[in-house]
Amino acid sequence: MPGMASAHSHAFQRALRGRTQSRNANKLTAAGNFWSWRDQMFQLVAELTPDDVLAISRFAFVELAMCGVTAVGEFHYVHHDVGGKPYANRLVMSEAVIEAAAEAGIRLSLIRTGYYRAGYGQTLHEGQKRFCDDATEQTLRDVQALTALTVGKTDHFRVAIAAHSIRACQQQQYLDLSAYAKQHHLPFHMHVSEQQREVDECVAEYGKRPVELLADDGVLDARFVAIHATHLLPHESALMGRANAIACICRTTERDLGDGLPVAADLAQAGVRFCVGADSHAASDAFEEVRAIELDERARHERRIVAAQGEALLAAATTHGYAAIGYADMLGQDQVYLRADDPSIADAMIGSRAETVTDAVVFGANARAVDRVIVGGKMIVDGGRHIHYDAALASYLACLKRLS
Amino acid sequence: MPGMASAHSHAFQRALRGRTQSRNANKLTAAGNFWSWRDQMFQLVAELTPDDVLAISRFAFVELAMCGVTAVGEFHYVHHDVGGKPYANRLVMSEAVIEAAAEAGIRLSLIRTGYYRAGYGQTLHEGQKRFCDDATEQTLRDVQALTALTVGKTDHFRVAIAAHSIRACQQQQYLDLSAYAKQHHLPFHMHVSEQQREVDECVAEYGKRPVELLADDGVLDARFVAIHATHLLPHESALMGRANAIACICRTTERDLGDGLPVAADLAQAGVRFCVGADSHAASDAFEEVRAIELDERARHERRIVAAQGEALLAAATTHGYAAIGYADMLGQDQVYLRADDPSIADAMIGSRAETVTDAVVFGANARAVDRVIVGGKMIVDGGRHIHYDAALASYLACLKRLS
Repeated sequence: MPGMASAHSHAFQRALRGRTQSRNANKLTAAGNFWSWRDQMFQLVAELTPDDVLAISRFAFVELAMCGVTAVGEFHYVHHDVGGKPYANRLVMSEAVIEAAAEAGIRLSLIRTGYYRAGYGQTLHEGQKRFCDDATEQTLRDVQALTALTVGKTDHFRVAIAAHSIRACQQQQYLDLSAYAKQHHLPFHMHVSEQQREVDECVAEYGKRPVELLADDGVLDARFVAIHATHLLPHESALMGRANAIACICRTTERDLGDGLPVAADLAQAGVRFCVGADSHAASDAFEEVRAIELDERARHERRIVAAQGEALLAAATTHGYAAIGYADMLGQDQVYLRADDPSIADAMIGSRAETVTDAVVFGANARAVDRVIVGGKMIVDGGRHIHYDAALASYLACLKRLS
Repeated sequence: MPGMASAHSHAFQRALRGRTQSRNANKLTAAGNFWSWRDQMFQLVAELTPDDVLAISRFAFVELAMCGVTAVGEFHYVHHDVGGKPYANRLVMSEAVIEAAAEAGIRLSLIRTGYYRAGYGQTLHEGQKRFCDDATEQTLRDVQALTALTVGKTDHFRVAIAAHSIRACQQQQYLDLSAYAKQHHLPFHMHVSEQQREVDECVAEYGKRPVELLADDGVLDARFVAIHATHLLPHESALMGRANAIACICRTTERDLGDGLPVAADLAQAGVRFCVGADSHAASDAFEEVRAIELDERARHERRIVAAQGEALLAAATTHGYAAIGYADMLGQDQVYLRADDPSIADAMIGSRAETVTDAVVFGANARAVDRVIVGGKMIVDGGRHIHYDAALASYLACLKRLS
């Protein structure tokens, strides 16, 4: 099968897996939520050095490759030192991510993210200092500097742009970034309506819901990727569809964070293309990411086959995922070979219908079924194991040890 | 870690994996539902020979073992020939399941299931003929005959009883079966409120909701296992808790069938013990089954850590699962060894908190992490592969080919 794209990744958050699941770890006496999880994430961020980002990202990308991912969109927003000052080499954090992907051997779209404020009328959290640029000019200067680094390497390393979210950018800021992206034909990503609170804050600031605002602003187009798109009303899905925008659904993370269920059937009905992302790396299972678009939507409707069937889900992992991170031209250059005899997909071998193979893989496959992964002719996973697995694991564990 | 129990299995349904996911396969032009899926299941049932049941069940059990399951509760209701007549050897279908488990090397609780009618005021579907006994006397005679077969093998083969559901049994029928189970200290299982339609039919027939009815009838006790327990009102969860009953949550199947979200937080709050089951074998991933109890509940509440934390989820897979199928005394006899260096759980190796290992495994592990599985001192999975995998796969595929 073609290689899969994980179009929305925060690789450094891989270090939180298994560390945010108890109330003790969250210092909570009752249920937590996205925002209490975010406090733990900020705590991690406060400690990260460029070497940590390299070690964690490399392991995260190696693990993605071992579940059939060949291209990743890294939504990158940890740029500055602990005090919020740019490093002497402004790009040092980005370079850590770039090196991590190069060593893992997967294609990277570094999605340089603009982040400027805590939220409408809110004071900056200590943990957010490392994310913030002073102005979009700074962000775009970094985009240009990063673009210069891609010369001669554009098969494996490209640059895209994100405005983190409506809460983290003022209107003129995301408009500046969007205009640059349109001018240079770059993908433009933005977290959209992940949490109900974000929708409420947007309405309070602008009198419009997030997708209404972005549509009125002319931000939505075929290169716009709405991350999550969870709390959308039907007319917002329709606006997305009319603009031919993409929705990046990140179910393993959304499920972990209690984000709620995205309106997958509405989005599909409106003709919105789906892609998927490992996001927080709460899990690394691209097959689970794509089937969850359909399966989790069944819980809402208490019906089956409501949002997308096998072929459409496979396209989310491949065609639309590659398009979402600016690698549409590389689709078909990367291959994933599954073990036909793995029990999770053994059913694909026998079938009277053409769809059987696709359905057996999309709805059945797990990471154990991944045998070989080839990116641009180079085998990076062989026999289910990444060729640099031991080294990547050792440096990841050393990093975790230091952080914990 | 201790071996895990899959307390609710319909092993023969393994043959449907990947074959019910498209509208074509369902002969549908719009979304399907549980009932349209059931038509496909009936179609499969109409074809099954005892040899098919052996081949499919053996492969299903081998696959379960490869994800760390060491004991299974087979909710067995396909007893008779295609015309609905008992086979000359009444137990031939049961014996196929027993042989399948013995060859797979996992402990089996054969849950002999009484099934007597289509539903309140409904005509029997052709596909249900093979399930139906004429009377509970017949069912209980089979239970006795099966119990006789366990002599000398009770370490690996035990018998329990189920009434299929309120729709498939009249009140006196499930009371008869429950009375026998109580008298012989056997687990007593029953599908409870999987679909809203079942709740509505129960109210129409008895003027009570399912758990209200079963509580008033004195059926609920510490050996009662409510399968699914999806559409419960808070006072029904409380009734379950007061009786110290067990809820068997089967998320991978419930999610597939569009059953809706079980009220996991309510049940936990009421002190109800959880266990899990592969049910239709839409997936075989016991780790996913247990974490989904918590993770899917987050979608409802849009909060985190709402129903159960790591230790409680691990208990669902082990302690409560073994208890639910009558193997409480065997807990600790079976071991699963995970690869500590599998990326899905690598985080367990480093941690400053005691919970880290449990949380990393419960929330992270996938089937690829399973290395060795030992049941009663015998290694049945080695290096992630079942010792009889090739033979089990070959006969499964031959069977699928014949059926498709």
